[in-house]
Amino acid sequence: MAQLPPVDTFDYIVFGATGDLTMRKLLPALYYRYRDGQIPDDSRIIGTARSPLSREDYQARAEKALRNFVKAEDLNDDTARRFLDLVHYVSLNGAEADSTWPALKSLLAETPADRIRVYYLATAPGLYGQICENLSNQGLVTPQSRVVLEKPIGTDLLSADAINDGVGKHFPENHIFRIDHYLGKETVQNLIALRFANPVFERLWSSDAIDYIQITAAETVGVEGRGPYYDKSGALRDMIQNHLLQVLCLVAMDPPGSLEADSLRNEKLKVLHALRPISPEDVATFTVRGQYTRGKNGDKTLPSYLEDLGQDATSSTETYVAIRAEIHSWRWGTVPFYLRSGKRMAEKCSEIVIQFKAAPWSIFPTRPDANRLVIRIQPDEGVTLSVSTKDPTPTDSLALRRADIDIAFETAFSTRYPDAYERLLLDVVRGDPVLFIRRDEVEAAWRWADPILKGWSENKVPLESYPAGSWGPAAAKALLARSGHQWHEDMV
Amino acid sequence: MAQLPPVDTFDYIVFGATGDLTMRKLLPALYYRYRDGQIPDDSRIIGTARSPLSREDYQARAEKALRNFVKAEDLNDDTARRFLDLVHYVSLNGAEADSTWPALKSLLAETPADRIRVYYLATAPGLYGQICENLSNQGLVTPQSRVVLEKPIGTDLLSADAINDGVGKHFPENHIFRIDHYLGKETVQNLIALRFANPVFERLWSSDAIDYIQITAAETVGVEGRGPYYDKSGALRDMIQNHLLQVLCLVAMDPPGSLEADSLRNEKLKVLHALRPISPEDVATFTVRGQYTRGKNGDKTLPSYLEDLGQDATSSTETYVAIRAEIHSWRWGTVPFYLRSGKRMAEKCSEIVIQFKAAPWSIFPTRPDANRLVIRIQPDEGVTLSVSTKDPTPTDSLALRRADIDIAFETAFSTRYPDAYERLLLDVVRGDPVLFIRRDEVEAAWRWADPILKGWSENKVPLESYPAGSWGPAAAKALLARSGHQWHEDMV
Repeated sequence: MAQLPPVDTFDYIVFGATGDLTMRKLLPALYYRYRDGQIPDDSRIIGTARSPLSREDYQARAEKALRNFVKAEDLNDDTARRFLDLVHYVSLNGAEADSTWPALKSLLAETPADRIRVYYLATAPGLYGQICENLSNQGLVTPQSRVVLEKPIGTDLLSADAINDGVGKHFPENHIFRIDHYLGKETVQNLIALRFANPVFERLWSSDAIDYIQITAAETVGVEGRGPYYDKSGALRDMIQNHLLQVLCLVAMDPPGSLEADSLRNEKLKVLHALRPISPEDVATFTVRGQYTRGKNGDKTLPSYLEDLGQDATSSTETYVAIRAEIHSWRWGTVPFYLRSGKRMAEKCSEIVIQFKAAPWSIFPTRPDANRLVIRIQPDEGVTLSVSTKDPTPTDSLALRRADIDIAFETAFSTRYPDAYERLLLDVVRGDPVLFIRRDEVEAAWRWADPILKGWSENKVPLESYPAGSWGPAAAKALLARSGHQWHEDMV
Repeated sequence: MAQLPPVDTFDYIVFGATGDLTMRKLLPALYYRYRDGQIPDDSRIIGTARSPLSREDYQARAEKALRNFVKAEDLNDDTARRFLDLVHYVSLNGAEADSTWPALKSLLAETPADRIRVYYLATAPGLYGQICENLSNQGLVTPQSRVVLEKPIGTDLLSADAINDGVGKHFPENHIFRIDHYLGKETVQNLIALRFANPVFERLWSSDAIDYIQITAAETVGVEGRGPYYDKSGALRDMIQNHLLQVLCLVAMDPPGSLEADSLRNEKLKVLHALRPISPEDVATFTVRGQYTRGKNGDKTLPSYLEDLGQDATSSTETYVAIRAEIHSWRWGTVPFYLRSGKRMAEKCSEIVIQFKAAPWSIFPTRPDANRLVIRIQPDEGVTLSVSTKDPTPTDSLALRRADIDIAFETAFSTRYPDAYERLLLDVVRGDPVLFIRRDEVEAAWRWADPILKGWSENKVPLESYPAGSWGPAAAKALLARSGHQWHEDMV
């Protein structure tokens, strides 16, 4: 792997450096890129947070993060030690104007002013604007500075605008990197390759050949420790409005003119603008929302959402959502895109199911199944094409049998698949925003989501219940059944 | 496998029963179908040949054939013994009117007159007419009788007509089963399933999406003991005119209205009729013929064709042929179908290569390879689709890597693949001619082949030479290179 091109030397300044995201994702991701020789040795990773830690304290926490979240076989003691040498720490409340900014300033002043600086905001989104303002007032926003915003950007169009305005006052749009880690996933990027490097797929990629499409992000976990945050968010804001809409964009978009960031993002935006609006009056027809009740996983009893939230909790937050989206365009006509996401589902699985139209006519004794292309995003990344082939049993007729042509990428390439963050963190250093969300995309997504949330808040569709460990409420099946369609797990 | 539906009780009368085909193919194939419970125990297999053997002698030969040509793990002593009980023998020269016909007659008279009778002619084709006439004169052609003709049917249109006339005088066309064992191969039949049970393939199956198609039947063996026969035949008659044209028909045909024999065969005939005629003047443009010279396989020296034929032999027979065929139809326009077959080639391989058109435009740093579907007929049966996917290496651009999505049917289904003859022999009993060649197909094939042979006999294109163990003469590469195309082994 030594031949990977290194990025330019950088300072990565992380706000919220003691948090879960930094420990689980950012530090391990940077370690892997360092190990593979892509990070120059004079780069620095500067953690900041309110905790009064010494550099050594923080390095010890970082080391523990590597032990916990890097695979043992990938963790080399010597490499880890050299990586930890890059790690610094400044105790700082980024949201306060009169915090210990001088300490950060003098640390940053040790390196040339034209060095690439990445300000990674892994804090509550409400602080983004304030942190940027402080960075700006302290003179820390250099021409080579970028800012990374972790999701979620707001809870509706209005609050998203406020955040984007606050950040945009101090950073130009092309220096703002709104992260959606789904876009860093190999299979999601592979959608671009599969579609636009393979005429055999792209020729099939329209309402001519496709019956309907499903995009699923199912988790088996409940809300656990994240209850208070999650209860204010819910599945639509937490998963659909960002991740699943992004995946939908890549599945549905027309061929971009190039892989330049704006070329690609213009096409995604076109899809978001073409989404059929779902008015509050439409939510009963196009959406299903649900909340998990007590359920079972084998012998184990799974608590309800309310139990997960804590004693005497009440909540009308959805932990499950299914939506029939439509993209009104020449390519898609009225092909349904079924989006769903839920917690405490039967299986952990993120996938795209392209259900092709059935053969118009069958000359075989049994009607062949319609072809299906399943693009798996999680837990393993791969693609399966279901085809009908001749049953080799020597019977008296040409009987059919289904064969699943499968490619598991990691196995096929005998290559470790990098985590989404590994790619995204270095793309920021490279200054390549192609896999990040432009402001107008965020706005278009909220413009579509807001009326749905409004309809729900007005109770235009009931909050269904579903047992923890199941595939969601019965109403979700009915949503598809009305068009003669089925969720993937119900297909034979 | 006990659930396979058995066929009706039959008498299978084989002419040429001591020959290689009977021993290698027919008896082992019938054994497998017997083992799987598809052949009723009161059926009979009656060998006839000129050798004066007793029934026991012949059973001993049959047993040896099973030992040699059935896989040891499939050969059960008890089953073999019961199978050999079905085997009878009559010493008879089928081509002579005054041979020992009474012996065959009395043996056949032991079973009801309405029993299915299959006369399998595994003799020289020149004898087919005479044998049928004798069968008829002896009153042995009952309404339930069928005749099976082994290839080749003639050496040109005229001789084929003579054979078909001779047989047709005594059997109606729908009781004449002209065997082409290629049609019994699972993958060849699977073409019908792949194309007409899978809209994802059929939608791509035309000049819109396909650049060119190759159909290859390459053997590593030379002519060995078959020299005298082969030298009168050559590769065009031996492989192209029958097997490869049949495969071409299945690849190129329009959807049949049903799987009824005539429905399918009408579509194949339509393809044969649409073949662009290659006049003697065209052979230099559309054909390449070659004969192998001495070559190497590693350290081993491979003899030339003339050396294989024997001392002081001279011959202008082609052991290799490559043809650019075109099917002039709405579906195919001028898409080339490159057919080739040769002896003493670098590899044993029968396959169909569907080379799709390249992407019209590339947004990637490297131009993606055109997609390719390879349908393997021999030695293993399977399908491989080559696609471009994202290279998972975390570089700074979206680089592509080729992935071969492979399905090896035998592995995928964990099922033994029946030999072509197993299916075909029982189809005759079932009276299902769908996988057999109708007279008009034979005629159309010869009508296309005859002018090529004429052009060659007039030396309108030179007989090229190629070293044994190679992929054929350089002129064959040039035949494709003129259109910017390549043989599969030359593709990167």
